Amino acid sequence: MSAANLQLDDNNKMRHFLSIEGLSREHLIRILDTAESFLNLSDRSVKKVPALRGKAVANLFFENSTRTRTTFELAAKRLSADVLNLNIDTSATTKGESLLDTLRNLEAMHVDMFVIRHSESGTAHFFARHAQPGVSIINAGDGQHAHPTQAMLDMFTIRQHKGDFTPLKVAIIGDILHSRVARSQILALNTLGVSEVRVVGPKTLLPIDTRESLGVHVFHDIEEGITDADVIIMLRLQKERMTGALLPSEHEFFQRYGLTESRLKLASPDAIVMHPGPINRGVEMETVVADGKQSVILQQVSYGIAIRMAILSMTMQPRGETS
Amino acid sequence: MSAANLQLDDNNKMRHFLSIEGLSREHLIRILDTAESFLNLSDRSVKKVPALRGKAVANLFFENSTRTRTTFELAAKRLSADVLNLNIDTSATTKGESLLDTLRNLEAMHVDMFVIRHSESGTAHFFARHAQPGVSIINAGDGQHAHPTQAMLDMFTIRQHKGDFTPLKVAIIGDILHSRVARSQILALNTLGVSEVRVVGPKTLLPIDTRESLGVHVFHDIEEGITDADVIIMLRLQKERMTGALLPSEHEFFQRYGLTESRLKLASPDAIVMHPGPINRGVEMETVVADGKQSVILQQVSYGIAIRMAILSMTMQPRGETS
Amino acid sequence: MSAANLQLDDNNKMRHFLSIEGLSREHLIRILDTAESFLNLSDRSVKKVPALRGKAVANLFFENSTRTRTTFELAAKRLSADVLNLNIDTSATTKGESLLDTLRNLEAMHVDMFVIRHSESGTAHFFARHAQPGVSIINAGDGQHAHPTQAMLDMFTIRQHKGDFTPLKVAIIGDILHSRVARSQILALNTLGVSEVRVVGPKTLLPIDTRESLGVHVFHDIEEGITDADVIIMLRLQKERMTGALLPSEHEFFQRYGLTESRLKLASPDAIVMHPGPINRGVEMETVVADGKQSVILQQVSYGIAIRMAILSMTMQPRGETS
Repeated sequence: MSAANLQLDDNNKMRHFLSIEGLSREHLIRILDTAESFLNLSDRSVKKVPALRGKAVANLFFENSTRTRTTFELAAKRLSADVLNLNIDTSATTKGESLLDTLRNLEAMHVDMFVIRHSESGTAHFFARHAQPGVSIINAGDGQHAHPTQAMLDMFTIRQHKGDFTPLKVAIIGDILHSRVARSQILALNTLGVSEVRVVGPKTLLPIDTRESLGVHVFHDIEEGITDADVIIMLRLQKERMTGALLPSEHEFFQRYGLTESRLKLASPDAIVMHPGPINRGVEMETVVADGKQSVILQQVSYGIAIRMAILSMTMQPRGETS
Repeated sequence: MSAANLQLDDNNKMRHFLSIEGLSREHLIRILDTAESFLNLSDRSVKKVPALRGKAVANLFFENSTRTRTTFELAAKRLSADVLNLNIDTSATTKGESLLDTLRNLEAMHVDMFVIRHSESGTAHFFARHAQPGVSIINAGDGQHAHPTQAMLDMFTIRQHKGDFTPLKVAIIGDILHSRVARSQILALNTLGVSEVRVVGPKTLLPIDTRESLGVHVFHDIEEGITDADVIIMLRLQKERMTGALLPSEHEFFQRYGLTESRLKLASPDAIVMHPGPINRGVEMETVVADGKQSVILQQVSYGIAIRMAILSMTMQPRGETS
Repeated sequence: MSAANLQLDDNNKMRHFLSIEGLSREHLIRILDTAESFLNLSDRSVKKVPALRGKAVANLFFENSTRTRTTFELAAKRLSADVLNLNIDTSATTKGESLLDTLRNLEAMHVDMFVIRHSESGTAHFFARHAQPGVSIINAGDGQHAHPTQAMLDMFTIRQHKGDFTPLKVAIIGDILHSRVARSQILALNTLGVSEVRVVGPKTLLPIDTRESLGVHVFHDIEEGITDADVIIMLRLQKERMTGALLPSEHEFFQRYGLTESRLKLASPDAIVMHPGPINRGVEMETVVADGKQSVILQQVSYGIAIRMAILSMTMQPRGETS
C-alpha cells in the first residue's frame, strides 16, 4: 500500500499523518485552516479545548528532540489529552518485530495516538501499516525521509505573511541532502502551487537527482539563489548526520552560504527569513539577520503548536472495539 | 504486624496493596469485579472517571520499568489523579533511614498514594509500616518477593476466558526461583481455588521447598507439565537476576522448556497462553505461539490498566489531618 | 534596572519573583497571607483550584533538584496549570545568547511562567530582564545568590509557630558562605523585623563582610550562638559547592557546629528547629533532634507547596498579545 493510501481513509480523510506525499492541495489547505482556528486560543486566558479529552497520546521518541517533543506535548495538553512521554533508547530495541511489540503493547494499554520520531526512514509508515483500527500515527521525523509537521508549520507561517502561495519564489538554502525538513517542504510548496522552488547549496549537499525528482531549480551560488526571493528558508546544518568530508568547515560554509545582511538585500524587500531551529548563529546566518525585522523564526515555533493541534485533532479516530 | 493486617483496615477493607498473602478469596473477587466495572471505560470516547480527582499519586520507581510505570500512570490519569513520576537511583539512597526520609518528605508534600518498585524484597511493606494515616502504598514489585498487581491482572485474564476458577489446571513454566510474579500467581490461584497448580522448570530454577511451602505440583519435564492444562503461564527469563551457572544457555532453555506449537497440542484444546511480557521470542516461546490464537498476552496488558484502576481506587483513603 | 524594579510592576505588584531584596514588609506579608489561604486546601478531598487553568508552567532546571522541582510541579498542578519539566544539561548550553534563545523559544510556545534553577547567580534576573510582557519568572535558586521561595516557606513556618516576628531571636548555623538559602533568609528576617539575626559558623564559612553587609550578629561558637534563640535554622552542608580546604571533615564540623540534644537545651525552651533538607544526619544535627518534638522540618516541606502556590498565583500575568 502506498503512503498516500495509508494515511487516508475511504472518505479521503486523514487517518494518520505520515508525509506530505499523497496529500492533495485540499488536504493541506484544510490543515492550515484548522490550525488558524486554534491560533487565537493561545492568547485567550484559558487555552484549553476538550477535543481530545480522555484520549491518550504517546510521544514515542527513539531519537531525542526536546523541542519537537515539547510542542507536541503542549499541543496535546491544550486539546485536553493525557500525554505519555516515552524516550526509548534505540540501542535497546531491534528492528521490526520489537518495534511491533512496542506498538502492540501500547495499543493494548489503550493509547490512541502515537507521535513517533525515529532515526530510520519509514518507521512511522511501519507503525501506520500495523496500527489497529482507531489508532493514529503522526510522523514527527523519520531518518532523512520526512518531517511533515515541520513543513506544515512552515507553510502556515508563509501563508500568514504572504496570503497567496501562487506568486511566491521560495529559496531553501543549506544542507538539502541530509534534510528531511527540506524534502517535506519542497513537496508541500509544490502541492500548494508556488511559482518557483529553489534549492541552494554546495554540490556535495544537494541530492544528485534533485532537479528531476523534486521539480526544483538548483543553485550553487547563494547570491543568485536568493535574488528576488519572497521566502528564504535556511536549513539547520545537521552536523551529526554528515559522514565523510562533504563540508570543509563551518566557517567556510558561512562564507559561501551563510545569510548575511548584505546578501539578504538581494531578496525581495519584504522577503521573510525562516529557520527550523535551533539556529547555529554565525554558521547558517548572522545574528543580526536571525533577530532582524524580516526574521519570522520565533513565529514558526509559535505556529508549531497550532499546526500540531490541527493535525492531532484531524487524525483522531473514534476508538474501535478492542479485545 | 503481619502483611495481612498491614494491608487491611479494621473493617477488613484494603488500605494498602502489598501482596496476595493475607487477602481472602472475597478480597480477590472484589478486585476482579471492580476491574470489570472499569473495563468498558477504555472503549468509551472519554475514558476518564473522577474517582481520584485532586489526589496525588507518586510512581516511586527505584528499579526501572517503563511498562509497569506506564500502566500505573495511565490508570491513575484515567481516575483523574495528578501523577508524579520519580525514578530514583538506588545507589544514591541508603537503606532504612533514607527510604523513610523519602516517604516522610513526599507525605509532607501531600502525596496521597505511592506506587513503589524496588529491587529489595519488603520495601513496600516497609513503606506501609511507616505510612501516615490517609496514605496508601501499592507494591509494584519488590525484589524476588511479590508482584501482586501482575498476579491480579493474570487472574482477571483467566476469569475473562474461563469463568470459573475451580476446575482449572494451571501450569506455570520457567524460572520460578527468581520470579516474584510466580510467587504472587501461585498464592492467588490457590486462594481462588483452582483445581491444580503446576510449576514446571529445571531443578536449578525451582525453589527447593516449592512443594511444601506453596502447595503446587512440580514437574521437570514440560511435556508432562502441560498435558491437559487449561492455562499455561510462561515466565520471563530474568537473565539479569540470575547469578551463577544455573542455566546453560538460552538455546538449551528453549530446547527443554520453550513453548512450541507441537508442545502446546498436549494442553487442553482451548488452553490459553499467558506471559507477563516483554517476551524473549525464541527463548520462552515460538513467535507462532506468542502471536497465535491461544495467546492472550496482549489482553493481559490491556486488563492491567483496569486492574490497576481497581486497586488504586479501592485503596484510596480519605486524607487525614496532617501537621 | 535594579532587581527591585524588575520584579514589581508600576502598581507595586509582583510580576516576577527573583529575590527578597527589593520587596517590602507588605509584599512578604501578602505572600504569607496568600499561602495561608491555600494551606487548608491540602486537607480537602479535592485539592485543586482553577487559578492557573490553561496556563503553561515550565520547570526549567539547569541544576538538578528533584525535591524543589517536585514541590513546584505539585503546586502548579494544584492550581490547574499544565506543567512542563525541562531538565537541561548546562554543558549543552553556553551563556547569554543561548539562554536567551531558550527563553524566546519557550515563550513562542506560549509558556506563561518559568521556574528557573541554575548554578550561576543572576540567571533568573537575566530571564526576567528579557521576558516578554505576560511572562513571569520565578527564581528557584541561582548559584550562591538567592533561593527566595525557600526563604519564604521558612518565614511561613516561623509565623505558623511564633505568630509575631518582632520579638524573635533567630540563629542560622553552618555554611553561610556558600548558602543562597541563608542570604535570602537573612534579608527576609530583617525585612519582617525580627529582634535579632545571628549567624553561627567557622570563620572559613562566613563571608568576610557579613556583619556590615547583612546586619547580623556573628558567632563562631555554637553554644553562644544558640543561647536563648527562638528559632534555630541549620543549613545543609553544601559539600559539592566547597572548594579548597575550608573545612577539616564532616566529623569535625559536627563536633563544633552540629546540633545536639544538649546544645539545643541552651535555646529558648519552645525554640523550633529548621533545616531546608535533605538532612545529613549526624553531620548538621543528631537524628534525635531531627525527629524530635522541636523539629518542624517536615512542616517546612509541607508549607513549601502552599508558598509556591501563593507565588505562582500572585505573579501570574494576563497573557499579552504575541505575534
